[in-house]
Amino acid sequence: MAKKISFSSDYTKGAHPRILERLAETNFDQQPGYGTDDICKSAAEKIKKACNAPQADVFFLVGGTQTNQTIIDMLLKPYEGVVAAQTGHVAAHEAGAIEFSGHKVLTLNSFPEDSNNSKAVYSDQVGKIMAKDLRALIDGFYADDNHEHMVFPGAVYISHPTEYGTLYSKAELEEISAICREKKIPLFLDGARLGYGLMSRRTDVTLEDIAKLVDVFYIGGTKVGALFGEAVVFTKGAPTAHPVPIIKQHGALLAKGWLLGLQFDTLFKDNLYMDISKNAIDMAEILRAKLEEKGYPIYIDSPTNQQFIVMEDDKLSVLAEHVGYGFWEKTDENHTVIRLATDWATTKEDIEELMKWL
Amino acid sequence: MAKKISFSSDYTKGAHPRILERLAETNFDQQPGYGTDDICKSAAEKIKKACNAPQADVFFLVGGTQTNQTIIDMLLKPYEGVVAAQTGHVAAHEAGAIEFSGHKVLTLNSFPEDSNNSKAVYSDQVGKIMAKDLRALIDGFYADDNHEHMVFPGAVYISHPTEYGTLYSKAELEEISAICREKKIPLFLDGARLGYGLMSRRTDVTLEDIAKLVDVFYIGGTKVGALFGEAVVFTKGAPTAHPVPIIKQHGALLAKGWLLGLQFDTLFKDNLYMDISKNAIDMAEILRAKLEEKGYPIYIDSPTNQQFIVMEDDKLSVLAEHVGYGFWEKTDENHTVIRLATDWATTKEDIEELMKWL
Amino acid sequence: MAKKISFSSDYTKGAHPRILERLAETNFDQQPGYGTDDICKSAAEKIKKACNAPQADVFFLVGGTQTNQTIIDMLLKPYEGVVAAQTGHVAAHEAGAIEFSGHKVLTLNSFPEDSNNSKAVYSDQVGKIMAKDLRALIDGFYADDNHEHMVFPGAVYISHPTEYGTLYSKAELEEISAICREKKIPLFLDGARLGYGLMSRRTDVTLEDIAKLVDVFYIGGTKVGALFGEAVVFTKGAPTAHPVPIIKQHGALLAKGWLLGLQFDTLFKDNLYMDISKNAIDMAEILRAKLEEKGYPIYIDSPTNQQFIVMEDDKLSVLAEHVGYGFWEKTDENHTVIRLATDWATTKEDIEELMKWL
Amino acid sequence: MAKKISFSSDYTKGAHPRILERLAETNFDQQPGYGTDDICKSAAEKIKKACNAPQADVFFLVGGTQTNQTIIDMLLKPYEGVVAAQTGHVAAHEAGAIEFSGHKVLTLNSFPEDSNNSKAVYSDQVGKIMAKDLRALIDGFYADDNHEHMVFPGAVYISHPTEYGTLYSKAELEEISAICREKKIPLFLDGARLGYGLMSRRTDVTLEDIAKLVDVFYIGGTKVGALFGEAVVFTKGAPTAHPVPIIKQHGALLAKGWLLGLQFDTLFKDNLYMDISKNAIDMAEILRAKLEEKGYPIYIDSPTNQQFIVMEDDKLSVLAEHVGYGFWEKTDENHTVIRLATDWATTKEDIEELMKWL
Repeated sequence: MAKKISFSSDYTKGAHPRILERLAETNFDQQPGYGTDDICKSAAEKIKKACNAPQADVFFLVGGTQTNQTIIDMLLKPYEGVVAAQTGHVAAHEAGAIEFSGHKVLTLNSFPEDSNNSKAVYSDQVGKIMAKDLRALIDGFYADDNHEHMVFPGAVYISHPTEYGTLYSKAELEEISAICREKKIPLFLDGARLGYGLMSRRTDVTLEDIAKLVDVFYIGGTKVGALFGEAVVFTKGAPTAHPVPIIKQHGALLAKGWLLGLQFDTLFKDNLYMDISKNAIDMAEILRAKLEEKGYPIYIDSPTNQQFIVMEDDKLSVLAEHVGYGFWEKTDENHTVIRLATDWATTKEDIEELMKWL
Repeated sequence: MAKKISFSSDYTKGAHPRILERLAETNFDQQPGYGTDDICKSAAEKIKKACNAPQADVFFLVGGTQTNQTIIDMLLKPYEGVVAAQTGHVAAHEAGAIEFSGHKVLTLNSFPEDSNNSKAVYSDQVGKIMAKDLRALIDGFYADDNHEHMVFPGAVYISHPTEYGTLYSKAELEEISAICREKKIPLFLDGARLGYGLMSRRTDVTLEDIAKLVDVFYIGGTKVGALFGEAVVFTKGAPTAHPVPIIKQHGALLAKGWLLGLQFDTLFKDNLYMDISKNAIDMAEILRAKLEEKGYPIYIDSPTNQQFIVMEDDKLSVLAEHVGYGFWEKTDENHTVIRLATDWATTKEDIEELMKWL
Repeated sequence: MAKKISFSSDYTKGAHPRILERLAETNFDQQPGYGTDDICKSAAEKIKKACNAPQADVFFLVGGTQTNQTIIDMLLKPYEGVVAAQTGHVAAHEAGAIEFSGHKVLTLNSFPEDSNNSKAVYSDQVGKIMAKDLRALIDGFYADDNHEHMVFPGAVYISHPTEYGTLYSKAELEEISAICREKKIPLFLDGARLGYGLMSRRTDVTLEDIAKLVDVFYIGGTKVGALFGEAVVFTKGAPTAHPVPIIKQHGALLAKGWLLGLQFDTLFKDNLYMDISKNAIDMAEILRAKLEEKGYPIYIDSPTNQQFIVMEDDKLSVLAEHVGYGFWEKTDENHTVIRLATDWATTKEDIEELMKWL
Repeated sequence: MAKKISFSSDYTKGAHPRILERLAETNFDQQPGYGTDDICKSAAEKIKKACNAPQADVFFLVGGTQTNQTIIDMLLKPYEGVVAAQTGHVAAHEAGAIEFSGHKVLTLNSFPEDSNNSKAVYSDQVGKIMAKDLRALIDGFYADDNHEHMVFPGAVYISHPTEYGTLYSKAELEEISAICREKKIPLFLDGARLGYGLMSRRTDVTLEDIAKLVDVFYIGGTKVGALFGEAVVFTKGAPTAHPVPIIKQHGALLAKGWLLGLQFDTLFKDNLYMDISKNAIDMAEILRAKLEEKGYPIYIDSPTNQQFIVMEDDKLSVLAEHVGYGFWEKTDENHTVIRLATDWATTKEDIEELMKWL
């Protein structure tokens, strides 16, 4: 039986072939452990240059939840929590990893009203936090006479793209950043799908903007061309003199750390990370046009590689036989929202194969 | 200068005189440490009898946050969180003590619509969780394909009275209890002000009902006649064979444990706990009648010892010179909600003194 | 049946009568909560004066394990542990409370050789850490190439008196303090029985010395005349701008905080704390003389209120019928080490009663 | 400049070529995430078969510290600690990862006397725990009247090979296992270098023996032919119905879990894991013979791939220019112990190159 094609997520395939080639080429080169090798240094330099952030500290960790947990634990004092959208990954889908390390997630509403008149049920604002809500939370906290009995807002977490594929505008990031700086609260941007955000046709945000506006962010590798790995960038230097024992304590210090460096060193050579991210966007745009053409209701007006449509369950069961998709939620008894994600390796043929069954 | 009278809270005074007398009488009796003494045993027996729960395990801890943290940590597996109202003490006012011990608080909306046509802004439902919301949260969790990446609902926390002075009806408790038993999730009732709930004129819930319907609850002493202390009742026995090291780990094992036993042994002799709780209610009813008479808008329709009214800020600044009150929140630029709490020792003269300045 | 007298520990009785009197006198005075009251301020001032430490911050907590856990958590960064004697309370007898809050206890040997030719099996050095061992641990740590994979020594914990009743000399404290300052590691002294150490006839250490030499210590109330309570003194100010939420997170913020202040305000008025501590020492010296007279082998050469002797088990079973004692350990099949502790309220009649059965 | 050869550790190279080949072959096959794929299932089956443990549960995690932390957290109740050699990885070299997750490491002496008359300073017993010490710790704990104030021994951790390259005999494992079963305490074997232990010429322990005698162990991949990865085997099934959220909470759930499965599926096909492990042993035996021939003092009598010798510092500085080695410790001012580790890919030419400089 032929292998079923899948659009269920952007982490279903291995790595960009150049990464595999380089793994093979360097396989018997011997490297020192724990990220102290020259390949990690080279990758960090390339990333700092791409970010125009010469003063940055760059670390490489293995996966998203691990990275979120470790960074947030580095940022917060014991009595502080992290502010996040209620739909943010750290709030909703990390099995309590933040609380496991002792910190509360302070949530903001992330289903803002649709002000865009988009044809989607949810506009391109869903999944984001609003600057005014952030300010209200912080000001409300300090205005409360009892705030020493409450959890201090000690860091702000945003994802870009969000878990719903949506993006902050540069103006929005600037506004959130300004609040964080005014309140001396570090701003952390989860870029698990950062490439797909940067290459969106509907963004005015660059990598350099992000490096300038946030205190720490990570460049996702797992979902963008790497076997695994996330590159953490503390834009103004790490908040601790001893990141290694903290990373080790979280079980996050990879023995063969150069495997992470090698992947990012490859992705940040010759613009590869951006090029393959652009592929996912190009394919998503083609996909979206075809979906609209066929009349599928768009559920979220996503400008990135994740597309969300509403399907009748009868048609969905036909689709399920031939193509993998991501279940999102039920809208009523007979309809389901599904996610279709393109990635760095999706081809036009893949889209055509998918459309055959839609 | 005369000491200012205060209605700011129900923990502004020492203890019922019988407790102080007994402390003096037994001061040089020597007792074994850590709650292994006979006075604790006697107090536990009295409480089990009052609850009609012969199979219960009773422990004595020092304060509310400590008790909530220790009990919830005993109830939950590492990957579980506790369900609570968003206004519940564990969610809002314990400085992240639950997260400090590794667990998420899963919150439910606690501002249900006013279905009672009460004259208050908020009805006597505010601060409570609704059975239907609880069921929706649990069912929604298990229906989610990704629930193994989410925090499991592992216990349910309710406060009775709530932080807003409101009460569950027996039918409501039965419904919540039934869901918890169906789902095999323990139900924990925070009774920091339990006496004031049981003695309310608008309750059909007895101590025996609570012992029957919940898995664990505590009988508040700090706010109801004791110097300090909360009596924890595991109605069907403790969930661990080794509560002592867990209590010790939380820094919650009092060396002179008999001080806790002695207070509850006194409070549960000759109906003292209920009698002094009734005093707070009687005084609250008088106070409320007078407040309504004077035309103060009632903010929350509370049937217990905490009363909430809206005041003009001009009048409030006059009051503040003569009487202590609890700041609750601002409703607009010129109005403030204040809390006026009666307690086990409030007198009619105290009420009159207060009304002089209102 | 007559109540059995007990020498099992120094926390078998209530509080000094002046404390009970003052509790009664102030019972209906209303106080603000959580230690924000004037009595706590007054007690803190008295303690700062007694310590000659005007710049100190003073907090009041309820019990020893709670205090150790909270202070150590305030002192340490996440990747740091606390250095302690292997017999230190935090290492051995707190049910893992330090590890519960995420930190390792790095232990030093505390059975140094007997250099004193004392008649006891263990000299007056047992239970203490040695400056040279502390220096070796710290230097060894930093000399290790892999120390970023190990737990950093982040604070030093000593108890004075130790769990074995022994005391540091002023010269020893100075040497340990000098190492800590050289290495920029805070020094914490657990003074659960501090009064009994200060009033020992064999000490050259004063309260002022301690305040000068350590970064934080606590003055034990539970074992020295209070119902409960430990006064924490950060000699150079608290290490955090927000101690309250940290204390609250540990379940250690007493609602009626003034109960703690009142006890220390009483103990630090008219030299009461020192006077009643001296009583315990006077009684211990009488006891020890009588024990030696009767030929009981002294097990530990303790200069404070805890005395340790070896008894034949046959004689012990007779004693057990009439007097409470503390089991310490078995030395062989027929002999047992017992602890006999005097306290602030022990009388000569108590000693005579005890000696009747020895 | 020619790349310097290194014997510094066994994690300096990539992966066995068959793993890289298979990664390339399957790179664009799409897999479901988080270890739910068929390759993981296949690898688990192969491992269960190799262990003759059909009832086992097998998980794949990324690295050693992460695996130790996650397993120990699964095994222990909150008030329990893990017993380990003082030199065990979890006790000494994981930056406090066990304490970070709330548990104490209860240590046993691991420098037993040399009973073997070996020519090494330390015999082949160093780094191991002794059954009699384990029994003494457990019995001593329960015999202590105060044990509810202490940390319960809740699991036993052993490494095989140990951090010093030494091995337990089958009889020793049986004795330790028998104690654990008698006391109902789970036994956990850290097999980060398991292949090198199983292929030692001086062992009578098989993979099947281990699966029979311990409750959980892991088969190290990182140091034995994989890019990364450790295969955890719960020999009698997992101790929790929900391992996934616990793994996720520890930041240890790899998105592309099949990468782990694929590596172990390859290593456990055609005896590859054992064959390449044997290579390391063969090379270590050649190396040791040559070292002894040249008169280098053997420091630890290791029967596995790690060899330890004492070198004069003058000679060492020459060596350092041409070959990588592992610094172990200084024995005096002029001598240093170094570790020379062979691995799955070491060749005779590598040994010859090394010997040129020794």
